[in-house]
Amino acid sequence: MTTLEDRPLVLDDEARAALFTDARTANAFAGTPVTDQQLAQIWDLARWAPTGANLQPMRVLFVRTDEARARLLPHLADTNRDRAASAPVTAVLAVDDRFHDNIPTVAPYMAGLQPVLEENTAMRGDMGTYSAALQAGYFILAVRALGLAAGPMAGFDKAGVDAEFFAGTTWKSSLVVNIGYPGENAYRPRMPRLDPGEVVRFV
Amino acid sequence: MTTLEDRPLVLDDEARAALFTDARTANAFAGTPVTDQQLAQIWDLARWAPTGANLQPMRVLFVRTDEARARLLPHLADTNRDRAASAPVTAVLAVDDRFHDNIPTVAPYMAGLQPVLEENTAMRGDMGTYSAALQAGYFILAVRALGLAAGPMAGFDKAGVDAEFFAGTTWKSSLVVNIGYPGENAYRPRMPRLDPGEVVRFV
Repeated sequence: MTTLEDRPLVLDDEARAALFTDARTANAFAGTPVTDQQLAQIWDLARWAPTGANLQPMRVLFVRTDEARARLLPHLADTNRDRAASAPVTAVLAVDDRFHDNIPTVAPYMAGLQPVLEENTAMRGDMGTYSAALQAGYFILAVRALGLAAGPMAGFDKAGVDAEFFAGTTWKSSLVVNIGYPGENAYRPRMPRLDPGEVVRFV
Repeated sequence: MTTLEDRPLVLDDEARAALFTDARTANAFAGTPVTDQQLAQIWDLARWAPTGANLQPMRVLFVRTDEARARLLPHLADTNRDRAASAPVTAVLAVDDRFHDNIPTVAPYMAGLQPVLEENTAMRGDMGTYSAALQAGYFILAVRALGLAAGPMAGFDKAGVDAEFFAGTTWKSSLVVNIGYPGENAYRPRMPRLDPGEVVRFV
């Protein structure tokens, strides 16, 4: 195992480019398949990054058969439908509304939190939404870490997706992410980022 | 510039370990300083990762002087105060409630969204919270990409921090992240992650 002391001081330039500075949201995908093993590897990276009280509320549904994709597409916004249709895989990222049931396993030292979250559904919703969004950020970068392009999309009918895929479960969809290798005309011109001077302060 | 075709297919083992599989939340920090240049580099990675409609609602306050730290510590939960006291830098991650004012700059093709978000404060709050949490995930991994340890903490008095640092602004705090090099006894035993079989499904 790599120990903490063995770690490189920084990622090299190529790795920084692949994850952050040069990576782009893909809007069209090549026919190149993505294997279930690659999808499992994405999760095997993303799942280690931190969540509030280690509660890990995010869940993942990988939609990768033609039959399942045909069930997903009608629930996407018009502009997103072609993007997902061309992707070999689309991940539906969800929150498990019963994530606090796992406290005895994942955070036994926080046992007192379980009845609080059982009772206080607003607090539970806020905690679940926030940590699942953190995990969605990790997930997008983990897709890129596998050398794949990610295409996150918030424009879809959540109630429709939930009824189609999560009926009878406690999973609620929050984000959809296309996954694959970029196809022709995959990228639009890059939209600007805010100037750090507007966003970052030092005290 | 590195082109998309030049990218490595995957991060190497060390980089994966440093960002995901071997990285840990640090609870105590060494005296080694962190420079303002390093802090700027963290943001220069994190700011490129995607947000909903490119709206980039997250803001960052880097607290790194003794005077500023003394203003921050009283607002942290007891168990988090010692952690932040030992960190050379603590970042307060916030949401700018007026993030939609930047639509003409960052998403001119979405001009119609600006009046909608001006009016619908609930939708604005949800969008801001979600994308800022995605950005917080990117931020934590960017800290690690610089070879630094991150210590995210949700346990603090948000109203107190906002009154202390953001009075008269539209910034609202959401997460606090200690940043530095790990000190002695920085790490607790790793808490378990949920089994992928409980979390990931394929259709």
